Amino acid sequence: MDIACDFNITIVGLGLIGGSMAKSIRENLSVKSIWALDLDRDVLKEAHESGIIDDLFEDDTIPIKNSDIVILCTYPNAVLEFMKKNRDNFKHGALITDTSGIKEKIVQGARDVLRSDCEFIGGHPMSGKESMGYKYSDGSIFQGTNYIITPDEKSNKELVLLLKEILFTIGFKRIIEMSPREHDRIVAYTSQLPHILACIMMNSKSFERSKDLHGGSFRDITRVADINCELWSELLHENKQNIVAELEAVIEDIKNISKMIDNDDIDSLKVVFKNSSMLRKEMNYEKA
Amino acid sequence: MDIACDFNITIVGLGLIGGSMAKSIRENLSVKSIWALDLDRDVLKEAHESGIIDDLFEDDTIPIKNSDIVILCTYPNAVLEFMKKNRDNFKHGALITDTSGIKEKIVQGARDVLRSDCEFIGGHPMSGKESMGYKYSDGSIFQGTNYIITPDEKSNKELVLLLKEILFTIGFKRIIEMSPREHDRIVAYTSQLPHILACIMMNSKSFERSKDLHGGSFRDITRVADINCELWSELLHENKQNIVAELEAVIEDIKNISKMIDNDDIDSLKVVFKNSSMLRKEMNYEKA
Repeated sequence: MDIACDFNITIVGLGLIGGSMAKSIRENLSVKSIWALDLDRDVLKEAHESGIIDDLFEDDTIPIKNSDIVILCTYPNAVLEFMKKNRDNFKHGALITDTSGIKEKIVQGARDVLRSDCEFIGGHPMSGKESMGYKYSDGSIFQGTNYIITPDEKSNKELVLLLKEILFTIGFKRIIEMSPREHDRIVAYTSQLPHILACIMMNSKSFERSKDLHGGSFRDITRVADINCELWSELLHENKQNIVAELEAVIEDIKNISKMIDNDDIDSLKVVFKNSSMLRKEMNYEKA
Repeated sequence: MDIACDFNITIVGLGLIGGSMAKSIRENLSVKSIWALDLDRDVLKEAHESGIIDDLFEDDTIPIKNSDIVILCTYPNAVLEFMKKNRDNFKHGALITDTSGIKEKIVQGARDVLRSDCEFIGGHPMSGKESMGYKYSDGSIFQGTNYIITPDEKSNKELVLLLKEILFTIGFKRIIEMSPREHDRIVAYTSQLPHILACIMMNSKSFERSKDLHGGSFRDITRVADINCELWSELLHENKQNIVAELEAVIEDIKNISKMIDNDDIDSLKVVFKNSSMLRKEMNYEKA
């Protein structure tokens, strides 16, 4: 790794993503210091004792005042509150980034509250795990996954490059740049929709009757139904326009397929199946 | 294993399920002979050479005439055709069972075509694999999974018991008895619905735009979208009343959740999430 590493990094929110960030940075980058903030002092102590973070602070503003890079790994609204509250604490020229699942409101919020000498670049790792919290964090969850960042034409090119280099170094396979608006449209389909369908399956009136008779396809579709309730209420609320549009599209698609089945239109059904088979096979080639 | 094994078994259709049946019977039961029928002679030769089946026949009726147990592992309509065609070939007192994904039509069909001295008990393993064909068959795919059988009050109790003992011996965790009608209602929800939703996700207009940005939840929900087109057209066609009812229920559930999101009704959304989290956690305990 050939990037200049003479900087201090603070990670805000040492949960699954923040903890995994801290661990993978510790493992792959020789930075000056890694610090973290979290409401849970015990988590900070544990991370300190195991050498993942370098120091503990009584005053949260000290690491922020001395950090060249701040990675906000909290829920979306907490990201905005943190930037607002620490407006005057960020180091001159600091790079501030986040990992939350919505981007338009966050990027707009950063523009509104941050000082002009600070640089905000939104980010979102396409990685995760069923379980939440620092104790499940693991540097390897990023290996081979993708990361979306949402810089714009005004973003500092050097800092965009630095962020990308850090992300590649800690294991991400591809860094994709797009607008915050495009990000929010895409995740409504690729992530929020599967989560909602998983929850709908589990809440179905048919569930009680079907108990214990779930094969692989049911287990797969409902894997993410054990959902972080607070986070997801917030994510869906903040991206409601896109997600409602996706849900409406799915309703139309279900109606169409239901009509094919009801009308014995096997030919149309086979077109749907052939297309999904072909596209799903391609996804596996991608991964390989 | 303490069951009387002085019988010959023929497996009809040596694909993923039939091949896995043959392999797990070979491994776990000392029967007199295991035979198989398949349209693909090469598959039969391969199974014979590797010792999975005991003999090859020029005349398909010979193993049928000499089998105490016949396991039909073909598509549903082929199960019915086979029974019709071999009505006079089955051995006196033979137990005939199948593994296909619909039961009401099959059980009714067996009643209509089989001789009264033959016993039919419908079956359906809750096991599977993404890939199809004998070359992916594997006795271990049944380990720890459930199996539904659909005997009724007229079924020969000893033969029901024998079938259950065989199924336990080859690795199934639980054998659940239910009516063919209840089976078809349940699989519409537990299996056919997840498959349809997987295909709908892949056929979405949003897919093209989202390329390469699929995290774990999308990969999980679409795992079964690489679907056996012929088999699934048949399964959905034969169970259309139940599946159309499930699709209509899902549309209502999506409309409800969409309304909650659109109306900022976070409290109701949290109730949905809490319920799905609780039920999904319980499913994992079950499995453990």
